[in-house]
Amino acid sequence: MLLHDYFRSSAAFRVRIALNLKSVAYQRHDVMLLENQQRSPEHLALNPQGFVPALEVDGKVLTQSLAIIDWLDAKYPEPRLIPADPDARAAALARALVIAADTHPLNNLRVMRRLKAMGVDDDARDEWSRHWIAEGFAALEAMAGDGPLLGGDSPNVADIFLVPQMFNARRFGVALEAYPKLVRADAAAQAIEAFAAAHPDRVAP
Amino acid sequence: MLLHDYFRSSAAFRVRIALNLKSVAYQRHDVMLLENQQRSPEHLALNPQGFVPALEVDGKVLTQSLAIIDWLDAKYPEPRLIPADPDARAAALARALVIAADTHPLNNLRVMRRLKAMGVDDDARDEWSRHWIAEGFAALEAMAGDGPLLGGDSPNVADIFLVPQMFNARRFGVALEAYPKLVRADAAAQAIEAFAAAHPDRVAP
Repeated sequence: MLLHDYFRSSAAFRVRIALNLKSVAYQRHDVMLLENQQRSPEHLALNPQGFVPALEVDGKVLTQSLAIIDWLDAKYPEPRLIPADPDARAAALARALVIAADTHPLNNLRVMRRLKAMGVDDDARDEWSRHWIAEGFAALEAMAGDGPLLGGDSPNVADIFLVPQMFNARRFGVALEAYPKLVRADAAAQAIEAFAAAHPDRVAP
Repeated sequence: MLLHDYFRSSAAFRVRIALNLKSVAYQRHDVMLLENQQRSPEHLALNPQGFVPALEVDGKVLTQSLAIIDWLDAKYPEPRLIPADPDARAAALARALVIAADTHPLNNLRVMRRLKAMGVDDDARDEWSRHWIAEGFAALEAMAGDGPLLGGDSPNVADIFLVPQMFNARRFGVALEAYPKLVRADAAAQAIEAFAAAHPDRVAP
């Protein structure tokens, strides 16, 4: 299993966490986003979106972090990352999707580059990022349960999406005091070695 | 079952299609986005994100269109909208997520309003929308199979996400000639009454 990865990519970080939680052995290939290696013919042949992560396994290429995590849950059922019970599953997926659909895509590298090309300056781009992260986190805080993790006593897909977004939030200087449940869940998750070992600082080239 | 809906919302349109495909009876409640009813205390109590769709069922509220469709697949298994086989499932979810995560969230009402507040003019906002839709569609075209639908001979979650995004693409004047597989899948899906009955023109208040 080969993960086409980038240390600071939020979506790739999620997949590293999931692989670690399931104790699945994998190799990493660094795709250097700042050098545009994701737009190389070789990478586009793996993933027409030109994104990381892409997971090569059994002669196939899987893309989209949530689809990859769902696939891992089918192939390596323990520990389960998306609950089996339909209601618990819907709640966990909804929380993950607040990040996956409505927070992270507004702040990734290609969007920042587009805004810059439109003449939006550094300060306004940072403010843009902080704004959308705050919107997502406010909703997620209201959706969170009693913890300690978003998954309750054990991490689930919502924690896997939260931790990389919290990493980004700190990079952009988002004030986190308004989200005590998220801060608690992030800390509880990062105390788990599977999360810690996936951290950008641990895999930076 | 009560769907908090808005006729032009892409995410709500997806859920209408899914409910129709499964022949699940539901009632609709129009949340008038242009009047900001999605930010009312009543709606925020249902969905802290302040978005549609929200599906009230069995005393619960489900949010996030993909989470809702996954839940419907568990509760109403026929016809299946997300394949059961792990590989087919990963492929279908990846296609849906190209729209769900990387296309639609960049072009919805709150983003358009934010850009306007930043001084981005009408033409530049339309160009922004066309750019991200073209990026998503180029990837999805490369990921599409032989059809006629993205789901093959029968529609799946990828078709459910494609059709509303194609509706948006036409509204923004995106040139579609470069995406023949998507145009074919969209036409094949719209020939199915479950899709046609969910169209904004059929449910507009």
